[in-house]
Amino acid sequence: MAHPAEFELISRYFSRPTADAILGAGDDAALLSPSIGMMLAVATDTLVAGVHFFPCAEPFALGWKTLAVNLSDLAAMGASPRWALLSLTLPETDDVWLSAFAAGFYACAEKFSVSLVGGDTTRGSLAFSVTALGEVPAGYALCRHAAQAGDDVWVSGYPGYAALALKEIEGKITLPDSLRVLCQKHLHMPEPRVDLGISLTHLAHAVIDISDGLLNDLAHIARRSALEAKVFRHCLPRLPEGVARETALAAVLSGGDDYELLFTASPEHRPKLAKLGIELDLPLWRIGEMTLPEPNREPAARLFDPNGEEIAWTQGGYEHFKTL
Amino acid sequence: MAHPAEFELISRYFSRPTADAILGAGDDAALLSPSIGMMLAVATDTLVAGVHFFPCAEPFALGWKTLAVNLSDLAAMGASPRWALLSLTLPETDDVWLSAFAAGFYACAEKFSVSLVGGDTTRGSLAFSVTALGEVPAGYALCRHAAQAGDDVWVSGYPGYAALALKEIEGKITLPDSLRVLCQKHLHMPEPRVDLGISLTHLAHAVIDISDGLLNDLAHIARRSALEAKVFRHCLPRLPEGVARETALAAVLSGGDDYELLFTASPEHRPKLAKLGIELDLPLWRIGEMTLPEPNREPAARLFDPNGEEIAWTQGGYEHFKTL
Repeated sequence: MAHPAEFELISRYFSRPTADAILGAGDDAALLSPSIGMMLAVATDTLVAGVHFFPCAEPFALGWKTLAVNLSDLAAMGASPRWALLSLTLPETDDVWLSAFAAGFYACAEKFSVSLVGGDTTRGSLAFSVTALGEVPAGYALCRHAAQAGDDVWVSGYPGYAALALKEIEGKITLPDSLRVLCQKHLHMPEPRVDLGISLTHLAHAVIDISDGLLNDLAHIARRSALEAKVFRHCLPRLPEGVARETALAAVLSGGDDYELLFTASPEHRPKLAKLGIELDLPLWRIGEMTLPEPNREPAARLFDPNGEEIAWTQGGYEHFKTL
Repeated sequence: MAHPAEFELISRYFSRPTADAILGAGDDAALLSPSIGMMLAVATDTLVAGVHFFPCAEPFALGWKTLAVNLSDLAAMGASPRWALLSLTLPETDDVWLSAFAAGFYACAEKFSVSLVGGDTTRGSLAFSVTALGEVPAGYALCRHAAQAGDDVWVSGYPGYAALALKEIEGKITLPDSLRVLCQKHLHMPEPRVDLGISLTHLAHAVIDISDGLLNDLAHIARRSALEAKVFRHCLPRLPEGVARETALAAVLSGGDDYELLFTASPEHRPKLAKLGIELDLPLWRIGEMTLPEPNREPAARLFDPNGEEIAWTQGGYEHFKTL
């Protein structure tokens, strides 16, 4: 499947030594030596120009994000990332662009101790596909279906910030200067919550990383666990200032592209989670609870106001139920 | 990174039970349990419409080939395939097309005992990216750099047949009816040489699967092993009949897309390899030998006639050296 230029491209930009592989890029397959007693966690994600990023996006950040979104999937399993494979589809060869993309990819790989061990290069519409492999002690992996009734619902960090940056790029809002940099950082170079995920293997029941919006992804946990997830509006992360409240709330609840971890844990772990947030220098917000679903109601994620009234939430925003 | 329709698509066509995974498609990552004492072999290949296949290609065959080319990479390592992840990029959702594609993918997966354990679906130009994972006993993996001076060079099966089918589709030749079916089978639904690869772990030194043409891929072994690879024209597989001799020879030597195994082995294994070919019902052709390179000559793959004269070979064909 190799394009004639593949070998040259790979060797020029993507053949840094791989300390952690028996055999890295350049053979038919990579050869890895999994650790005894560990499960292998494997995630794959594709980023397509015009769908997941703007074709003119800054290549260093794009290289970072291409790997980071996959490490976020591993973090949501509680796995320590170890290896990655990269499939590049490129319309043309541009040395300056490729060099910056590779630098961003390796910056993320080095920060999270990941070895690039293989991949391929193809001619075509701009797209990247990464497969990331990590390890988690057998029996400690974090899954979506493991939430329990009575669990607290938690979210890490800064949900909504990436969505606000995107809204500004689309010309729909104007962010205050102080907020813009932070939001753009979250959109273009998200930080996979690897250390948090590893710590959660001993504290959390169900975990997911937020890529489709907080409530959408919480609904996955709810359905998989056959429970109802209740989110309390007054417990949500402090909304970014300098943005209309409705806009900020919509971004937090359904913005997507956050790569924060959303998880459930027993209330007995509240003190440990508070301590963990301080240790990791990462805010952890307790935003709701998991309950048994009411009879004849589908497991779902629902939003409530401080009076216990349900707030009907739609992709575009929210409104109070009139008829409940 | 999920598209809104992703979950539905995945669950409708790609969620057959995965006996061999702790947790398959539908969570953030797949969870696999590698076998103790085995190395993990991981390969990834992307197929792009218009580059690797015609956009109008028959979807069942496309599904088969998407997985098969990755299993061919594992076969070239001597690995037993176990798991796969599939990234689909689709311009639109077409139930009939997807259903046939999935059927072809699973037909290949079931034949070679592979569990589909994850992947994602994205909107974009038609492309598929597969990551295949297999296992090989520690110390027995087959690599490109392990050829030894004095080794025989062997090739399996039917190199050149796929290239002839492609030439006919491009309108450059007309194949006799008897040959057309066979050639099309090799182009559209190649058979990864999985059993051969596994058997070769005890017999071969260096192995590669042919995707870029026999001489091109043999040159990879030669360079990696710092040896010269000599191919004897009169030892090549019997050329398909009903095609001009020059056309057939060019297809065998540089056609590509063959997914046959090309390997080197000590001459002492000739009887065992002859027996193996019969057991597998797969022709194994001894086509040349590995030698120490002459002084001041780059390691390469070279073609010789029965008199020991080198035949200069170019991508488009070959001609006798005039000045040697």
